[in-house]
Amino acid sequence: MSASDPSVVKRILEGFDPVKHGLSKDFLLTKLTAMKGCGCKVPRAVLLELLEGLDEGHGVKTDDEVGIGLDSCVIPLRHEGMFLVQTTDFFYPLIDDPYLMGRVTCANVLSDLYAMGVVSCDNMLMLLGVAKDLNDKERDVIVGQFMQGFKDAATFAGTKIRGGQTVRCPWLLLGGVGTSVVTQSEMSLVDAAQPGDVLVLTKPIGGQVAVNSYEWLKNGSERFTQLELDEKKVRKAFQQVCEQMTRLNINAARMLLKHGAHASTDVTGFGILGHADNLAKAQKAKVQFVIDTLPIIEYMDEISKRMLNGNGFNLFGGTSAETSGGLLVALSEDKAQQFVKDMEEIDGRPAWIIGRVERAADGADNGAVISEGYKVVSVPSPIH
Amino acid sequence: MSASDPSVVKRILEGFDPVKHGLSKDFLLTKLTAMKGCGCKVPRAVLLELLEGLDEGHGVKTDDEVGIGLDSCVIPLRHEGMFLVQTTDFFYPLIDDPYLMGRVTCANVLSDLYAMGVVSCDNMLMLLGVAKDLNDKERDVIVGQFMQGFKDAATFAGTKIRGGQTVRCPWLLLGGVGTSVVTQSEMSLVDAAQPGDVLVLTKPIGGQVAVNSYEWLKNGSERFTQLELDEKKVRKAFQQVCEQMTRLNINAARMLLKHGAHASTDVTGFGILGHADNLAKAQKAKVQFVIDTLPIIEYMDEISKRMLNGNGFNLFGGTSAETSGGLLVALSEDKAQQFVKDMEEIDGRPAWIIGRVERAADGADNGAVISEGYKVVSVPSPIH
Repeated sequence: MSASDPSVVKRILEGFDPVKHGLSKDFLLTKLTAMKGCGCKVPRAVLLELLEGLDEGHGVKTDDEVGIGLDSCVIPLRHEGMFLVQTTDFFYPLIDDPYLMGRVTCANVLSDLYAMGVVSCDNMLMLLGVAKDLNDKERDVIVGQFMQGFKDAATFAGTKIRGGQTVRCPWLLLGGVGTSVVTQSEMSLVDAAQPGDVLVLTKPIGGQVAVNSYEWLKNGSERFTQLELDEKKVRKAFQQVCEQMTRLNINAARMLLKHGAHASTDVTGFGILGHADNLAKAQKAKVQFVIDTLPIIEYMDEISKRMLNGNGFNLFGGTSAETSGGLLVALSEDKAQQFVKDMEEIDGRPAWIIGRVERAADGADNGAVISEGYKVVSVPSPIH
Repeated sequence: MSASDPSVVKRILEGFDPVKHGLSKDFLLTKLTAMKGCGCKVPRAVLLELLEGLDEGHGVKTDDEVGIGLDSCVIPLRHEGMFLVQTTDFFYPLIDDPYLMGRVTCANVLSDLYAMGVVSCDNMLMLLGVAKDLNDKERDVIVGQFMQGFKDAATFAGTKIRGGQTVRCPWLLLGGVGTSVVTQSEMSLVDAAQPGDVLVLTKPIGGQVAVNSYEWLKNGSERFTQLELDEKKVRKAFQQVCEQMTRLNINAARMLLKHGAHASTDVTGFGILGHADNLAKAQKAKVQFVIDTLPIIEYMDEISKRMLNGNGFNLFGGTSAETSGGLLVALSEDKAQQFVKDMEEIDGRPAWIIGRVERAADGADNGAVISEGYKVVSVPSPIH
């Protein structure tokens, strides 16, 4: 087989006509950027300098056990009985500390593996878009700190970063790739939730409220005073969300296998209800996930209530975004209590039974709802 | 082990002081972007719509054989005798056709695996930053076309895309991740070049000149007329570079193992000399790579000569950037002729012996040079 696909040549000869695609005739893809192709790489010397700035570190290798593909893709390999589990994520800074952003980014990438019960990550790649408006000093600090944070989180997770890519970009873009090669027994179930199961959540929601209210404070926004917010409480909540965003879901992943979880996912951009709904739809059984309890970062429910519609960020509607949120787990009721107890014991952080798995109504699609009489649990910061 | 690293809490409490890092006191990381955290995700419905627009395709599974880690990282796995080979790349559009850009991007990512002799990619992830200034129509077309091109190239390569991430971004950002799990015998050598070996190149250089001169033409730049460039020749060269950028290095990868290559890399952003130098420095033996022949896309040498210093883009200095360039291979002289012949036969495209591997001078570091009396080979377009 020739490596030159004839259809490519055809396409080259035909060319791309923007008008044929309903675009204006002067539409040019290349005008969307000021840098091109491989020429946009950060100079090699700069990269090497930054890499040298990192400590060697001690990659504590975990040989722990692990538990198929909702958050990560799962690919059966040519080598029998082996599966490739892989995930990628990248986004923009939402806090000002580049080191912490490195930790959050790494935790958020790994979380997709943890959501599958995979606790041993074989390799990480780091993805970095370096904001073009940074001067050299800013770049060295920001990139150096980010990489250090990312690396420290990886080391903490027992894995290593052995590759990546960096480009210049108008915005600072942060991300990574996590990959693991596992056997079936090293992954937990993801599509076996049953009516009668309960739902467990391992980190409180309200992250978006915490990050944004802190932004108002920091920027001296009118909003802050209009809502008569309490500075001390907002600062405390911001610390709390930083802690939980950097916290790995690795122990929750271990508990998935230990307690024979039936399904799990991690809570991120679509919010608690969005991810519960995705997870419900991925189940083999006809099920509805009913959330009856919302564990919320302390004071964030109060802020949401003070906002115009009494439900700022739609926090109580369950679609407020989380970054590096907790795992949402479906498992049998008798195992759930011990799961929660184990989490509290190992992580020193609470977990909650937040709902139940019901049989979906006849003819209804799988999905998730927040029940009308839902309860709010205010979760205080573990940082004192 | 708790998943909450005490040092993180410490850091949270300390906070990040930009001044301590030599930055201005009002420096805010979050000001570098207009979107934040997971909230920047392209709406799920939009993504699903775009994904549905792709044909199902037929992933032709290659079971071919393959041949440790310069272009890709190579990680010994917990499963004995197995290695994870992985690479990532992302960059910006350098041609206007989004479909072709998809193919170029995929070919460029896979090339890092091919450079290791790994011909079977087990999984690909697609990375996409969607330019924020695109209207819905533009976005649907551009992203849809790009994804189709990327997917077609992956299918052509016998692999599949089973994951990825998309964010909004000021610039259109295109990339991917390639991963393969292989045994030692499925990777070629990368650090065993010996004095007496020769160097083979599988695609001509001059890509940057071809892309830029076409830009001048397209934009009606004065440069085009000042240099008295030939429109027809510039258009032809642009077609040629599009063809070779989308052409997979998969057959070259196959030849690495078949002919027992001693070392190899792919030529991209650092240019032919930059990558030859990197490869020479990675060798176990004390060697110098001497390039005596520069195969150049037809007319591009002429353009470079007409420019101010008679060496536009430093084409003859060997640092002019390539995107999805060819493989640079060191192998024994007696095998090289057959390698070149095989490539021409299988790909229908020429390859060239462009230099030799010499013993490095006493005390000198490994490196690469272009010899003074280098020869230029003008390579005509295969598209007629």
